[in-house]
Amino acid sequence: MSLSEFQLIDKFFAHCSVERSDVLLGIGDDAALFKAPAGATLVAAVDTLVEGVHFPNNTSAADIGYRALAVNLSDFAAMGAEPAWATLALTLPRADDEWLREFSAGFCGAARQYNVQLVGGDTTKGSLTVTVQLTGYVPDGYALRRDAAKPGDLIYVTGTLGDAGLALALLEDQCKVTRQQQEYVLSRFYRPQPRVQHGIALRNLANAAIDISDGLLADLNHVLTASQVGATLIVDHVPLSTALQSVLQTVGGWRLPLTAGDDYELCFTVPQEKKAEVEHLLGRYPGSMTCVGTVENEMGLRCQFSSGQQFETSESGYDHFR
Amino acid sequence: MSLSEFQLIDKFFAHCSVERSDVLLGIGDDAALFKAPAGATLVAAVDTLVEGVHFPNNTSAADIGYRALAVNLSDFAAMGAEPAWATLALTLPRADDEWLREFSAGFCGAARQYNVQLVGGDTTKGSLTVTVQLTGYVPDGYALRRDAAKPGDLIYVTGTLGDAGLALALLEDQCKVTRQQQEYVLSRFYRPQPRVQHGIALRNLANAAIDISDGLLADLNHVLTASQVGATLIVDHVPLSTALQSVLQTVGGWRLPLTAGDDYELCFTVPQEKKAEVEHLLGRYPGSMTCVGTVENEMGLRCQFSSGQQFETSESGYDHFR
Repeated sequence: MSLSEFQLIDKFFAHCSVERSDVLLGIGDDAALFKAPAGATLVAAVDTLVEGVHFPNNTSAADIGYRALAVNLSDFAAMGAEPAWATLALTLPRADDEWLREFSAGFCGAARQYNVQLVGGDTTKGSLTVTVQLTGYVPDGYALRRDAAKPGDLIYVTGTLGDAGLALALLEDQCKVTRQQQEYVLSRFYRPQPRVQHGIALRNLANAAIDISDGLLADLNHVLTASQVGATLIVDHVPLSTALQSVLQTVGGWRLPLTAGDDYELCFTVPQEKKAEVEHLLGRYPGSMTCVGTVENEMGLRCQFSSGQQFETSESGYDHFR
Repeated sequence: MSLSEFQLIDKFFAHCSVERSDVLLGIGDDAALFKAPAGATLVAAVDTLVEGVHFPNNTSAADIGYRALAVNLSDFAAMGAEPAWATLALTLPRADDEWLREFSAGFCGAARQYNVQLVGGDTTKGSLTVTVQLTGYVPDGYALRRDAAKPGDLIYVTGTLGDAGLALALLEDQCKVTRQQQEYVLSRFYRPQPRVQHGIALRNLANAAIDISDGLLADLNHVLTASQVGATLIVDHVPLSTALQSVLQTVGGWRLPLTAGDDYELCFTVPQEKKAEVEHLLGRYPGSMTCVGTVENEMGLRCQFSSGQQFETSESGYDHFR
């Protein structure tokens, strides 16, 4: 390859089409320069995708590019934060024009959708690894944290859970759904829709929030532990897509929606007295929201069915090094 | 391995010892929260290190950790910026306690030296790849850029050049120096000292600046191209360590200090009338500075010896994909 790393970056990413007026200097110098609004707290999240670990080896470059930004956008949703500036560290086995063109189309598509400008990057040679840092802001004092859930809060989730896990099961031929359902489920995995609007709307309303990247049980446990509270989760209130409903028993029953990761929905807790306001406000945005449990004083996460029957689980979600 | 990725990050990096008062929320939530001073422009740089590409396979974990932050600090030096908040994306073949302990010691050592707080990270499984994003700030309007060199400016470099290139030659047994020189040269490669103080001091004085990561010719050319000017470089004015002086011909002559990367010194241009002030002010800090040429109207970079003899080179520095 004769393309230098500088040209690579210039050629495929310099014109990522979003040009924010608060960026003073984008790609091309030693560092990027940008301005946050007055009265803003800065927010930063970083995520790495590794081929074969975070996406199957045959995932399209466009989906990898989209996803690399989307997972960070989901962290922003969980903070109630406004995304603004991204950097991209791309490690590639070789400089492949076609791959880069598709990757940048996916990445820049997500960037346009959420008004994020790519302000810097580094391109290096090695195993395919994509790290994106997203920086943005939230008005001082309005960030949603995971450590502020209160006993009595209602626990909500957005969308449906387990679809990304079902997508992996479908890719491994563990079960079958209709063609239309398959398309829907795969799009849920390859093109998660970060709930940025929901997060921003929840700034004044939710006590705590987290995005569901490691599975509901694991992520809800993070909230409970950080907040030093417990909860009861009503397992059969967890919302499922019709595709997952149709094969739930084949793919391991409730284990999948409770412990499979990569759904990138939000889990948040809301004081009882704000229930109506939250349901009204968030009803404006695509994707439903469902109350799945209650925060309690007693530490620990208790799972039961609405019939009152206990649900036993020892699994706590996805863990790279386990 | 039974360590989860969450425990990994907590155990080795959560107590990285720098606690900045402007950090509202560090590691442990979906995203970090921090505040920039009023009147500040935000600055962000990102760099990836890949094993076998950016450092030899047997490099100590501590040196990799140090270097991963240092290369970003050098970008900050080149912008005249104040470093503040870092994120670390660490991809590792396995969770190795000893390796992580050493890595974090190196990383956190650099963080303490430059008052940088680690505010977030991601740990994933894969080939050893380290991406650090550094964010910080500079007073509005004071950032040093590479596109503002003016005809008549003097071209300076800090420190000595070619030492990192010599270190690689020594590691490959291409030449020999004294034991003391060897230690010095290897420390220059494994523990570059980013010129952050110099950069901050140059805010009011330099027209343009860049850090020398790809080799002087390549990096100076970036400045000249961005500024739409040319220059004459006096090759034998380029400062060399006594170690490199002693083996210069064995390792390829002036090619090495002009084209080897990884020195992480600064190259900057200064109006003639500020020469005395710059030399006085930067004299306070460790590491010398040397005038190596002059910016000119005529585009292109002309290299000659102080005798007037032309120096011909077609090499322009290090390029990963060439």
